[in-house]
Amino acid sequence: MRIKDESKHEAIMQATIQLVNEIGFVATSISKIAKIAEVSPATIYVYYANKEDLMVSTYVDIKKKLSQAILRDFDESLPIRDIFKKFWYNSFDYIGQFPHYFQFTEQFSSSPFSDLVNKEAVENSYAQMMQVIQKGITQKIIKDVDFDILTTFMFYPIFTLCNKRLCQSFSKTEHNIEKAFTLAWDAIKL
Amino acid sequence: MRIKDESKHEAIMQATIQLVNEIGFVATSISKIAKIAEVSPATIYVYYANKEDLMVSTYVDIKKKLSQAILRDFDESLPIRDIFKKFWYNSFDYIGQFPHYFQFTEQFSSSPFSDLVNKEAVENSYAQMMQVIQKGITQKIIKDVDFDILTTFMFYPIFTLCNKRLCQSFSKTEHNIEKAFTLAWDAIKL
Repeated sequence: MRIKDESKHEAIMQATIQLVNEIGFVATSISKIAKIAEVSPATIYVYYANKEDLMVSTYVDIKKKLSQAILRDFDESLPIRDIFKKFWYNSFDYIGQFPHYFQFTEQFSSSPFSDLVNKEAVENSYAQMMQVIQKGITQKIIKDVDFDILTTFMFYPIFTLCNKRLCQSFSKTEHNIEKAFTLAWDAIKL
Repeated sequence: MRIKDESKHEAIMQATIQLVNEIGFVATSISKIAKIAEVSPATIYVYYANKEDLMVSTYVDIKKKLSQAILRDFDESLPIRDIFKKFWYNSFDYIGQFPHYFQFTEQFSSSPFSDLVNKEAVENSYAQMMQVIQKGITQKIIKDVDFDILTTFMFYPIFTLCNKRLCQSFSKTEHNIEKAFTLAWDAIKL
């Protein structure tokens, strides 16, 4: 992709997120997105087959960006607990910086579009995190339970805590984020 | 309310949940709900001021039903851990029985309607659970942290685990539900 294309691409993605957050999936259309992104509808169809494709790609893109953010300063030589703590703080940073991304992914996850996601493509971006979990299980540091159960206590609580509608009184201070990490770690450690 | 009204009321609520799950909040209208519930739009306006009111009331109704289900066989004389375990199993039972209710509440929580909820009305139904948490903190059985942090690890994981889109491989066997409870309890216990 040329630089110009890259910025168009980004504008389309941002417009998609903005519109879905404002008016929902059903009311969002390619023509409305094109208007906000200041491109022609035809340009959108260069990148995406249809509305479904655009929604799913936007979702996958956010998930990949999140995985990159979580892996910032990743150092696999650190103790497992420290690696998780880094993941935990990186996630709070990223979600705090781009709350509208996660407003979108939340709506997306409870929409039928969710079934169209190529789960493998998303999982690949999280492979390194999964390896850390696997290493923790092998070394008997982390409980040997389903990955789904572990991520439910290690990653999803971050979304819950960052969701103002679910956690009204939780303020994202260093102290509170650290406290919450203690609970996540106590949950998964053996 | 007379019995006839009660059943109309229930039909309207069920139609609302069904439609929102199928076509989303924006596309759902009073007239479409009336058609599915087999009542006249005028009848709906007897119970609800407008679409917002209907959505919010349906949400509050589900939350109240959930709280009643969680409190089934509540016995405050039991050890705190056993009380929580009962809450945990009751929640899985209820969410498993009425998954469409929680598909609705999930969508609702990430919609702007969510800001219209009378939080106190919902919290009142959860007062007994909050008292158990408070008792656990006072007796130094549960960590003395924010209620938001505690519920994030004690209650929200149930929704995550019951969400097929988030947890594809998690099957709700007695064994897995028990395993997951161990993590929740390890998270919150002192």
